[in-house]
Amino acid sequence: MTTATKRTLEDRLRDIEDRLEIYNLIASHPPSADTGADYVARAMYLEDGEMDLAGGKGAKGNEAIAAIVKKPGHTKAIEQGLAHFAGLPYIAIDGDTAVVTSYLQILAPHPTADPIEVPDHGASPGFRVHRVGANRWELVRTPQGWKIKRRTLRPLDGSEPARQILRRALEAYEPKP
Amino acid sequence: MTTATKRTLEDRLRDIEDRLEIYNLIASHPPSADTGADYVARAMYLEDGEMDLAGGKGAKGNEAIAAIVKKPGHTKAIEQGLAHFAGLPYIAIDGDTAVVTSYLQILAPHPTADPIEVPDHGASPGFRVHRVGANRWELVRTPQGWKIKRRTLRPLDGSEPARQILRRALEAYEPKP
Amino acid sequence: MTTATKRTLEDRLRDIEDRLEIYNLIASHPPSADTGADYVARAMYLEDGEMDLAGGKGAKGNEAIAAIVKKPGHTKAIEQGLAHFAGLPYIAIDGDTAVVTSYLQILAPHPTADPIEVPDHGASPGFRVHRVGANRWELVRTPQGWKIKRRTLRPLDGSEPARQILRRALEAYEPKP
Repeated sequence: MTTATKRTLEDRLRDIEDRLEIYNLIASHPPSADTGADYVARAMYLEDGEMDLAGGKGAKGNEAIAAIVKKPGHTKAIEQGLAHFAGLPYIAIDGDTAVVTSYLQILAPHPTADPIEVPDHGASPGFRVHRVGANRWELVRTPQGWKIKRRTLRPLDGSEPARQILRRALEAYEPKP
Repeated sequence: MTTATKRTLEDRLRDIEDRLEIYNLIASHPPSADTGADYVARAMYLEDGEMDLAGGKGAKGNEAIAAIVKKPGHTKAIEQGLAHFAGLPYIAIDGDTAVVTSYLQILAPHPTADPIEVPDHGASPGFRVHRVGANRWELVRTPQGWKIKRRTLRPLDGSEPARQILRRALEAYEPKP
Repeated sequence: MTTATKRTLEDRLRDIEDRLEIYNLIASHPPSADTGADYVARAMYLEDGEMDLAGGKGAKGNEAIAAIVKKPGHTKAIEQGLAHFAGLPYIAIDGDTAVVTSYLQILAPHPTADPIEVPDHGASPGFRVHRVGANRWELVRTPQGWKIKRRTLRPLDGSEPARQILRRALEAYEPKP
């Protein structure tokens, strides 16, 4: 670990604190989406940050991104039951930039299923996994902490773009030519 | 980062070790619930700790909380197949107390679905997401490590209490008046 | 915390960096499985590493393990839509070895369901949770970082082997006789 020993204590601590701050950043996305907390997106994204969703959807600028969770349709989804569910993210930090690759489920109560009883866990119609996607979060360090420069989300439905996101997380493993 | 530079090395290391210990605490909940390991709840909760579930359910005291996973109904659920699945938690530490906000899925094998084949992954009737909920874990530091003072769980079915839990995780982002 | 104070700063930093490296190792598994990135398994496993799946399936040696994600059946599953989804893992490090216990969902697009509309989230046939399993990852420290000596995966379908994996994660909580 020659590299590690050459790094100062401060370097190592900063790397560690960066990682933990970034875990919390990613973990704060689902609560903000599921409560319509536009102030979170406004604070998490750079002023000129971008959210790039499939089908040409998304928004540019933290104000426009924040406005998404205040749309009537989004509010209705929240009222019907909405859960963004984040898996364990992969984090790669390079100085003042970082890339996070993460999986996300979007769940909603099952609109038609009959309630099913699980012993000691009551009866429930259950939830359906509406979507599963791969996220690429491009982050930059700012005086106010790590912020999102660009988030790209693509559905894991067999199409290529989601796989491109996932493959880019694995670059460190690629065999050197 | 004036705040950071004023903090001693020991402060910073302790914060980091706290965070990692708390991740493991949250990660040990699903295995304990899915195996009926009452000794885990007994060790994780304060003696006068509380578990506050929806519908007035729950328990007070680590012994009563531990007893829940030994109830015949819970044992039956385990025998039929039960998986508590924890997402990436949001952690906020303030000295000797901490609050963790996390998503939880409760899954069970689908009781009626016909097996479906996924290439190279065999045939399976699949699992259903019985419930999705938001957890608020209020923790305190003790000489024996971080322990749970109160856990509150509410279903993400569109009702308000789950959103209240999620919003409280986002207080740090709220615009200052 | 007598134990902690006896440990050197370097010991503590190494423990922390180990934990964060291991989180990333676990987080890189789903992207590799869902893209057929055989070079990741080749790099993550020891040369004589083992993957032990239910029903006597699995493979021995990093080359054989890497070959699994290149099988025609696996490629077909990826083309139809495949998502390995990792929950928050429990990590126990002991010097130069570590054990990680983690939950894993395997999701695939629902082959028959009609699309359902969620407001502001479009219409989707949804995904089904094909399998939920418990993983035990036995790791060793090498000059090239943490590597997998043995991974054991068992389905959480009510059968005993998955519970054995989960219980072993909880050994630190077991009451001393």
